[in-house]
Amino acid sequence: MRAAVFHGAHDIRIDEVPDPRIEKPTDAIVRITRTAICGSDLWFYRGQQDYAPGSRTGHEPMGVVEEVGPEVRHVRPGDLVLAPFAISDGTCEFCHNDLPTACTHGGFWAGMTDGAQGEAVRAPFADGTLVRVPERAHGNDALLDALFPLTDVMGTGHHAAVCAGVVPGSTALVIGDGAVGLCGVLAARRLGAERIIALGHHADRLEKARAFGATDVVDSHGDEAVETLLEMTRGGARHVLECVGSASSMQQAIQLVRPGGAIGYVGVPHGPAEEGLDIMSLFFKNATFRGGPAPVRAYMKTLMPDVLDGTLDPSPVFDMTVDLDGVPEGYAAMHDRKALKVLVKA
Amino acid sequence: MRAAVFHGAHDIRIDEVPDPRIEKPTDAIVRITRTAICGSDLWFYRGQQDYAPGSRTGHEPMGVVEEVGPEVRHVRPGDLVLAPFAISDGTCEFCHNDLPTACTHGGFWAGMTDGAQGEAVRAPFADGTLVRVPERAHGNDALLDALFPLTDVMGTGHHAAVCAGVVPGSTALVIGDGAVGLCGVLAARRLGAERIIALGHHADRLEKARAFGATDVVDSHGDEAVETLLEMTRGGARHVLECVGSASSMQQAIQLVRPGGAIGYVGVPHGPAEEGLDIMSLFFKNATFRGGPAPVRAYMKTLMPDVLDGTLDPSPVFDMTVDLDGVPEGYAAMHDRKALKVLVKA
Repeated sequence: MRAAVFHGAHDIRIDEVPDPRIEKPTDAIVRITRTAICGSDLWFYRGQQDYAPGSRTGHEPMGVVEEVGPEVRHVRPGDLVLAPFAISDGTCEFCHNDLPTACTHGGFWAGMTDGAQGEAVRAPFADGTLVRVPERAHGNDALLDALFPLTDVMGTGHHAAVCAGVVPGSTALVIGDGAVGLCGVLAARRLGAERIIALGHHADRLEKARAFGATDVVDSHGDEAVETLLEMTRGGARHVLECVGSASSMQQAIQLVRPGGAIGYVGVPHGPAEEGLDIMSLFFKNATFRGGPAPVRAYMKTLMPDVLDGTLDPSPVFDMTVDLDGVPEGYAAMHDRKALKVLVKA
Repeated sequence: MRAAVFHGAHDIRIDEVPDPRIEKPTDAIVRITRTAICGSDLWFYRGQQDYAPGSRTGHEPMGVVEEVGPEVRHVRPGDLVLAPFAISDGTCEFCHNDLPTACTHGGFWAGMTDGAQGEAVRAPFADGTLVRVPERAHGNDALLDALFPLTDVMGTGHHAAVCAGVVPGSTALVIGDGAVGLCGVLAARRLGAERIIALGHHADRLEKARAFGATDVVDSHGDEAVETLLEMTRGGARHVLECVGSASSMQQAIQLVRPGGAIGYVGVPHGPAEEGLDIMSLFFKNATFRGGPAPVRAYMKTLMPDVLDGTLDPSPVFDMTVDLDGVPEGYAAMHDRKALKVLVKA
């Protein structure tokens, strides 16, 4: 079969690779119908994160189950399924407590199996990892597009809002106008935020933020952004969704959170952000700092009904659609910021 | 009058200083009957924190109001009062929302007025800062000793427990066997924790932790402590009270918090801890990190009734009592770890 393979920075190719096969009794093979390119894929694409040449890429699959191992109970061949960016066994303490991203036996696609940008993939712990798409959505292309972001970005934006403690009536500040930030806007609106301020650098994305429910958008950088926002909020927002993960956006989140407020952070810390955090400012503000890899598998239970009834539709985060052969072009477009997020359809 | 003055590292003297006087209409003058030496005073004492020679020291006063400015409404001359380590105006958004340590006009004793290790002190924003001691406690020396830690350490230990999310039935891990850590044990017990593990390095203090309600004590360092505790908790505690503030104790807190759990941190970050935090581990654990200067003024409302009815008594944290002349000796004893916490009585 064919799949996207990382050959080096800025070099993704569609190669012939071995067909996936059941290796463990809890595995399933999924023929992929939709997958995507993630903002976090750009870190290795740009050479800013170690990634072994020859490795398969991608971690947001939707598809049809083709074959299951003898111990798989909850999905069957023919089922249309979604899978989150994290693999989880569905049986450990953390899976039972809605934190499958901390699964004792879990991991990530490229680490535990293969990447999901390909014709098919082996899904470990199929019962814990895969989620069936309800039949009413089958064949409804628009609804499937709306469900598909539950594999990653919509759940991640929701996690930012949950960690930031957004409740009805909140003022929420969303830092970042990428796909996760936009989903953070949607999530904050869904949770009842009264005022949602989106901070970003791209007029077209901020336009989308407005369509998603942002009441204010700020297109600004650095100190100027901080000054503008401190004035708009009269001293900071109680709920800050940090949806980037860079050192500067983390620092902005700390500068912009109101004393006693909370920062929900979901961008994988990268670059200098890995080295630390301005803990003194956080301390003197008594701000809560909470986040991590979103437990999107658990959030699917919460969010899927809203997508099915049409009240939640994150699909506009996709502004470019390619087939498998278009994946390399999709990476380049996202790297060049010509595309916000790329949908890959079989 | 006489007061403790910092002359340089390891050099605190009792000097003749000007009598305090009302400078602003919201000031009060308090004749000090009890004050204390704080673990955080040791940072400047040891030369590990900048502190201007000639500055007065101390920030935990209890005493009798001697004089008030014309705008003071809630305390009168003759009132016995407590004051928290932070000054607050009692009128701003944060004072109204139980976060007086973020008061818009507030600050700390040595910054806004004089230190509180002296015969008397000027208390700014007397209405917001001072709290009256109920009459039933007057003249009851043991009860006053038990109330006095509400000025700082007891409220700070309580903040660690609140920030760590301790609820009835919790397993709480308290890192640090100083006065704040011991008060953290008391607070966790008061909030209903079922299992309280105290981690420290001093057998006598851990004995005290046990008397305060610790169900387990661990006297261990570094990796060995981490291994022991991970085994005892089968993977970490959901509620970690970080009561030290050093880089190594912060790192231990991150290593020992269970995924999805919370770290309450109340030690002023110092040394390398100021430079950052291992954000990647925190991120991948989805742990909440929450803390700051404890709003002890607000917590007095919660904690004072329990002290008055005899169910909460943090006074055993004091194991040395001196008069004002004994303050230099008290600093030396705390620095040498011969004293846990020093009470200064007029």
